[in-house]
Amino acid sequence: MTETSARTELPRSADIEQAAARIAAHVRETPLLRPGGGLGGAADVVLKLECLQHTGSFKPRGAFNRVLAEAQLPAAGLIAASGGNHGVAVAHVARTLGVAAEIFVPEIAAPAKLARLRDYGATLRIGGRDFAEALQACERRRRENGALGVHAYDEFAVVAGQGTLAREFEAQSGGLDSVLIAVGGGGLVGGALAWFGRRVQVVAVEPRRSCALHAALAAGAPVAGEVGGIAADSLGARQAGEIAFALARESLHASVLVEDEDIIAAQQLLWSQLRIVAEPGGATALAALLSGAYRPRPGERVGIVVCGANTDPGTVAGC
Amino acid sequence: MTETSARTELPRSADIEQAAARIAAHVRETPLLRPGGGLGGAADVVLKLECLQHTGSFKPRGAFNRVLAEAQLPAAGLIAASGGNHGVAVAHVARTLGVAAEIFVPEIAAPAKLARLRDYGATLRIGGRDFAEALQACERRRRENGALGVHAYDEFAVVAGQGTLAREFEAQSGGLDSVLIAVGGGGLVGGALAWFGRRVQVVAVEPRRSCALHAALAAGAPVAGEVGGIAADSLGARQAGEIAFALARESLHASVLVEDEDIIAAQQLLWSQLRIVAEPGGATALAALLSGAYRPRPGERVGIVVCGANTDPGTVAGC
Repeated sequence: MTETSARTELPRSADIEQAAARIAAHVRETPLLRPGGGLGGAADVVLKLECLQHTGSFKPRGAFNRVLAEAQLPAAGLIAASGGNHGVAVAHVARTLGVAAEIFVPEIAAPAKLARLRDYGATLRIGGRDFAEALQACERRRRENGALGVHAYDEFAVVAGQGTLAREFEAQSGGLDSVLIAVGGGGLVGGALAWFGRRVQVVAVEPRRSCALHAALAAGAPVAGEVGGIAADSLGARQAGEIAFALARESLHASVLVEDEDIIAAQQLLWSQLRIVAEPGGATALAALLSGAYRPRPGERVGIVVCGANTDPGTVAGC
Repeated sequence: MTETSARTELPRSADIEQAAARIAAHVRETPLLRPGGGLGGAADVVLKLECLQHTGSFKPRGAFNRVLAEAQLPAAGLIAASGGNHGVAVAHVARTLGVAAEIFVPEIAAPAKLARLRDYGATLRIGGRDFAEALQACERRRRENGALGVHAYDEFAVVAGQGTLAREFEAQSGGLDSVLIAVGGGGLVGGALAWFGRRVQVVAVEPRRSCALHAALAAGAPVAGEVGGIAADSLGARQAGEIAFALARESLHASVLVEDEDIIAAQQLLWSQLRIVAEPGGATALAALLSGAYRPRPGERVGIVVCGANTDPGTVAGC
């Protein structure tokens, strides 16, 4: 929401420790998979299967942390704007905690995601051409009814909650040299930067057609940009979050871009070689390795987050 | 093959330890997932995601162990009869080790599995109404060309290799009270029985329409029976293996049956709640829990093997 996105305080590892304790009962410890078979050449690749998280993406980590940080929830419950995974996560959090959820979605939202939002019992408000317009409508409504807003990425507690993924990944893996993370608005990569700092090389991976963080780093500040391409439904933030941008300036190792065809190839490899279903945004980090957009050193311990599965599984085979 | 299926020696835990060392470089340590969210009621459920193994099923464990136990491989390479996952595994083993593979498949084999066999470079021989007829043709050919036969389930080294799954599951889980395993011919459940004995309650789960082990236990010996239903392509053995039957008589805790609709429901839950794609045979063990065919005690640590993913992923959604 507006006031929190202007907040300058950045989450640190202690905030992530606190978040991990707060949300532990509500999130899955998602497994790792070492694919072997030459994937990644001479690097030592390990995948974090966050696509197996509740609701099929990492988003419940941040949403639970944001909501459970409140001493008391307003009678109007939760409110959020999202065309997809974040909205489903907020609806899931609301249902889990027994409160109402009102979700504002743009007109372009996929029917399958709307159906899933309804399954979780959320009240849907469909309107606006894109995420930014849905967010404006959401904000107006929040000021009317006093519901608790949960921003999709640019909020202290949300970023700290997403950071629990990095903490868990590091503990499970026994050590990483680098970690590749797909970026939309920057909630997940912000959390990873807050956790790892420069201890692990954090690599931000964006589709060339939706690259808000890359554009922000080039411009020296978050800037509004165009959104498009195959992963736009999950990574299509018009502008990077202030929190993620500030953390990226502190310690991001690299910002790389991939093409839509690289993402499709990564989705197909995930199914044909590993039997993992990933949505385009969920396969984007791996696409950087496969395409050569990121080239690890021999022996480098490369962590790759497969962060979402919310696609029609029939679309991923291609093999 | 005939001579080995008549062998009475049974694999034991030392054989499984040996198998684990022998195949370690060639198989993935597949991850566990604790689903939470009330799955399994008051039981403590953990899934073994063997569907993420190379080739999408547990079968490479047994096949690698069988083949790597030989000091030298014949010039004709490997030969096997299989309607699906075992054939793919043997083709994968052959390609990995640089030898030829000839696979005999019955006419009922799924087109997707045939395509995959071809992808692995195996020579396909399609004929016979079911697995038993394909096996006869395979055996004739083996006597001609001297290839190394790899039985789908009823062979000492194959059962010992499948037992490495049970060993790995126990070590990863930190302890199990019971383990639910889908049964076709009995290779996997035989390996689990050889590893666990009575230390963990091994539960054999079969579709009512393909229940060779259940029939064998009722008759007091493996008997030829009918094969059908949704999981027949992976669990449709006409007759249980002698090795699995002997091990089941020693220490099987329970043999339970599930209906095809239970299996479909389990496939749908795996996708809708966990984003895991399982083929019908791969979802059969979970079906026993969901349907109530197996009812754990409160607090029971129930391990469930999701043993195969080789289906068209577009068929599993239903949500």
